[in-house]
Amino acid sequence: MSTASVTGDLEIEQYFKLIQNLILKCGTIMNEGFLSKQTKFKTKSAFYDIVSEYDKKIEDIIINGISEEYPTHKFIGEEEQAESKIEALLTDDPTWIIDPIDGTTNFMKKIPQACISVGLSIKKQLVLGIVYNPMLNELFAAKTGHGAFFNGEQIHASRICDVKEAVLGYEISLIHDKRVRDKNVKRIYKLASNCTGTRCVGSAALSLCYVAMGRFDAYHVDDLKPWDIAGGAVILREAGGVVTHTSGGEFNIMKPDLIGSSTTELNKQIVELIKEADSITDYTFE
Amino acid sequence: MSTASVTGDLEIEQYFKLIQNLILKCGTIMNEGFLSKQTKFKTKSAFYDIVSEYDKKIEDIIINGISEEYPTHKFIGEEEQAESKIEALLTDDPTWIIDPIDGTTNFMKKIPQACISVGLSIKKQLVLGIVYNPMLNELFAAKTGHGAFFNGEQIHASRICDVKEAVLGYEISLIHDKRVRDKNVKRIYKLASNCTGTRCVGSAALSLCYVAMGRFDAYHVDDLKPWDIAGGAVILREAGGVVTHTSGGEFNIMKPDLIGSSTTELNKQIVELIKEADSITDYTFE
Repeated sequence: MSTASVTGDLEIEQYFKLIQNLILKCGTIMNEGFLSKQTKFKTKSAFYDIVSEYDKKIEDIIINGISEEYPTHKFIGEEEQAESKIEALLTDDPTWIIDPIDGTTNFMKKIPQACISVGLSIKKQLVLGIVYNPMLNELFAAKTGHGAFFNGEQIHASRICDVKEAVLGYEISLIHDKRVRDKNVKRIYKLASNCTGTRCVGSAALSLCYVAMGRFDAYHVDDLKPWDIAGGAVILREAGGVVTHTSGGEFNIMKPDLIGSSTTELNKQIVELIKEADSITDYTFE
Repeated sequence: MSTASVTGDLEIEQYFKLIQNLILKCGTIMNEGFLSKQTKFKTKSAFYDIVSEYDKKIEDIIINGISEEYPTHKFIGEEEQAESKIEALLTDDPTWIIDPIDGTTNFMKKIPQACISVGLSIKKQLVLGIVYNPMLNELFAAKTGHGAFFNGEQIHASRICDVKEAVLGYEISLIHDKRVRDKNVKRIYKLASNCTGTRCVGSAALSLCYVAMGRFDAYHVDDLKPWDIAGGAVILREAGGVVTHTSGGEFNIMKPDLIGSSTTELNKQIVELIKEADSITDYTFE
């Protein structure tokens, strides 16, 4: 479905300008939190209190800023869902899918790889994405049908077609979660054995943007939430990349298990490697 | 052994000023290579030719610059060893242990996490370390007994004592190497299951510096070379961190299997987890 059939370009452009201004404003707040010495070396729970405070502050600015202009627009986001206690449901209405801080552990530990991530869905189609890392001043943005941009310059995914030449992003920290441990150990074994390099950033939104600009050639993750993925997925597609469900089937933003890759060929190889990994029963990784 | 017993502070200070100037000069060259569009989207072999060229250029500047002032000093480094075909041997002589580009895959892929890393050994003791990432303008430096510094400001490792609160750096890409695959899959399972977060940077020198400044709480890697580790090991120790052999025994720069951690308590926990991982025979990671 083309952008024009979903909604007018002019309208999207207005939404884009509004969200970009709001995100740049929030970036200043996020960067202040990052640089603040008060937030250094806290215990994990104290850390999370501080992060929650920034999370809430940023989400409020974005939601209030949009609601003032467009009172009928809807929102899906971590803080939003935590408050309403209702499972998010995507409708045809313009819906902003927001992660006020993606990469919270990085933010806490002063690792400058965290971001504000926003995607906009209209008639269940993602029409714009914007991901901003204020610590390194990296702004990624895309409108469906109009390309992807990094600090104003158009970007393209790499042309890597062979997994043996690919650098992969993977969230190895997911092994921490018992429910998905076995799956992730087997997949990281299979993928890291075949890719030329594997990196773990700790931010899905940034990892997808890194594929979009050629730093990575692929990124795979399951079991995250719509707000971790929405912004980055639009940016990667608009950079010429491919986003599918982990099975190779159609990507669904509401259950966003995914492979993001530079090319279709690479996507297919990763789908196959994941299938092989999932079918492993003999665990000797020699 | 204190610095004064190895050699005079004044002498170390002169060595430090010389190497810092050389590294800053090389940083400009490295950054030019990083920003050059000519080096984008090449095949793996073409990439490596380009990286080799920069590697050689930087190592030449450093070795020539030091040799001019101190013709009796020795060198251990990737390019140096590749040419001489002789296994490096550490003597009592002042010996510069050099990695002109640590994080070559990152450098190739335009991931701004690569660095020039240098350590100096005198009478087999590391007396200074300097690690410079020119892409993000991050300069880490330490002289033994005088603290560690990040862009001129003194840094300290975190005070994390519990692995459950720790962010760990680990080179998951090592799974690519069949000879050490099984070991690394088991260790990453055990460590990532217990740590609060795991990150893969693709540069040992930078990862050790990240522990030194509290971005990470620990870093573990086996099977690397002296030049990957020397600079970062000095910096981490001078930031109050702990560097031991992977077994918990004494660290040996010539066979630098290591755990670098913020505290002794954390080091001990990681030693134990690695022992548990190495003894796994029942591979069901639930």
